[in-house]
Amino acid sequence: MSRAVVLLSGGLDSTTTLAVARSQGYECHTLTVDYGQRHRIELEAADRVAAALGAASHRRVAMDLRAIGGSALTDDIPVPKDARPGEGPVPPTYVPARNTILLGLLLGLAEVLGARELFIGANAVDYSGYPDCRPEFLRAFETLARLATRAGADGGAAFRVRAPLLHLSKAEIVRLATDLGVDLSLTWSCYDPTPDGRACGRCDSCTLRRKGFEEAGVSDPTPYTT
Amino acid sequence: MSRAVVLLSGGLDSTTTLAVARSQGYECHTLTVDYGQRHRIELEAADRVAAALGAASHRRVAMDLRAIGGSALTDDIPVPKDARPGEGPVPPTYVPARNTILLGLLLGLAEVLGARELFIGANAVDYSGYPDCRPEFLRAFETLARLATRAGADGGAAFRVRAPLLHLSKAEIVRLATDLGVDLSLTWSCYDPTPDGRACGRCDSCTLRRKGFEEAGVSDPTPYTT
Repeated sequence: MSRAVVLLSGGLDSTTTLAVARSQGYECHTLTVDYGQRHRIELEAADRVAAALGAASHRRVAMDLRAIGGSALTDDIPVPKDARPGEGPVPPTYVPARNTILLGLLLGLAEVLGARELFIGANAVDYSGYPDCRPEFLRAFETLARLATRAGADGGAAFRVRAPLLHLSKAEIVRLATDLGVDLSLTWSCYDPTPDGRACGRCDSCTLRRKGFEEAGVSDPTPYTT
Repeated sequence: MSRAVVLLSGGLDSTTTLAVARSQGYECHTLTVDYGQRHRIELEAADRVAAALGAASHRRVAMDLRAIGGSALTDDIPVPKDARPGEGPVPPTYVPARNTILLGLLLGLAEVLGARELFIGANAVDYSGYPDCRPEFLRAFETLARLATRAGADGGAAFRVRAPLLHLSKAEIVRLATDLGVDLSLTWSCYDPTPDGRACGRCDSCTLRRKGFEEAGVSDPTPYTT
C-alpha cells in the first residue's frame, strides 16, 4: 500500500481530498497545523475527520503565525462579510505565505514517512482568490520539493503535489464527497464562528460552502446563525 | 531605508549575514524559529545577536518540528561526531524540509512588512551537504515566492533570496565577520552542547567552525569541551 500525506484543515475541501486519496488506495497520514487561527473549532473537526476517514496516523503541529500576523484569520482584523469571493483583490483572510509553510511541513512529513504523494485540497474555481491556491504555485512547489530534500538530492523518486479538487466547482466537491460516503457534518468551514459554535453564514468560506451545497442539491448540516 | 528580513539562528553564518545586510544599508527585521532544536542555547544567541547588531525588530516563532521528527537535531538520534562534513550522504542532522519551512515563514514576514529582500546564511562550500542550502534550491524558492504571495499576484516587485555567504569558505566568513566588527563571542554553532553550556567540538557544526577560525587566523571565543 503506497503512503500519502494529506494536509487536513477539517474543512470541506481537505476532507474530500482525504476521501479521494483513500479511495485511490493510499495509506493516508494526515497533518493539521494549528497556526493560531481564530476559528479553532476547525482543529477539532480535523481530528474527527482523520478518525472517521481512517487516517493511518494524524498529527497536529503547532506553529504560531500570530507572531508574523498580517491576516484576519490570525489578527484582530475583521473577517469580511457578504463579499463576492474570488472577485477583486486578495482578501484580508489571506494568511501570508500560508500554503508555502504548510506544504513545507507536509513535505517534511512525507520525507520522514517515505511518502511521495502530497495531497492538498487547493481549489482554483470557487475560492477566495488566494495566490497560493493556483496551479502554477503548486507546480512551482513540486519543483522546489525535489531540490529541497534528501530524497531529491539522492536522486530518488520525485514528490508529487496532488490537488484533486483544483478544477472542481464547490457543488462538484459536495457531490464528490457525498458519492464517497463522507459524513459532511464532521467538517467545518466558517472563518468566524460564534462562541457557542455556530457558523456566521456570511464570510467567504461560508458563502462558498452554502452555494456549493445549494447547487449540489445537498442539505448542509452546518449550524448557521443566519 | 529599504527593509529586509533576515533568518537568524544565532550561529556564525546567519549572524554574518545580518551584518552584511546592515552594512548594505538595510533596515533589518530578524526572524528566529524555535523548531524544537535540542541545542536551545542558539535561541538565546539569536536574541543577543539581534540586539547587538541593531535589528529593527526581532521575532521568535515557535513551531514544533518534533511532531514530524526525522532528525538528530529534534529527535533522540545521536549527533555524529568527527565526521567529514560535506562528504558522503546527507547526515542525520538534516531536518526534513527545514529551509523550505523557514524560508516560508520568512516570506510571510517579508510580505507583512513590505520587504522584498530575504537574507539567509546558506553556504554551499564548508557545509554538511544539506540539499536545501544549494543555489538551485534558493533560486527555486525565489520563483515560488513570486507565485505564492499577494505581492506577486498583484504584479508587485519580486522577492529576492539573498545568500551573501553562499560561495565563501568558512575562513572567509570568519574574516568577513571580523572586518564588519561582529563580536563573534555572541554566536553559537554547536549542535550538541553540554548541559553547562560548552560546545562539543566534534559535531559537523563545531568541526566547520573550528576549521574556519583556524584558517582565518582568528581566535575562536567558543568554550569547547575538547
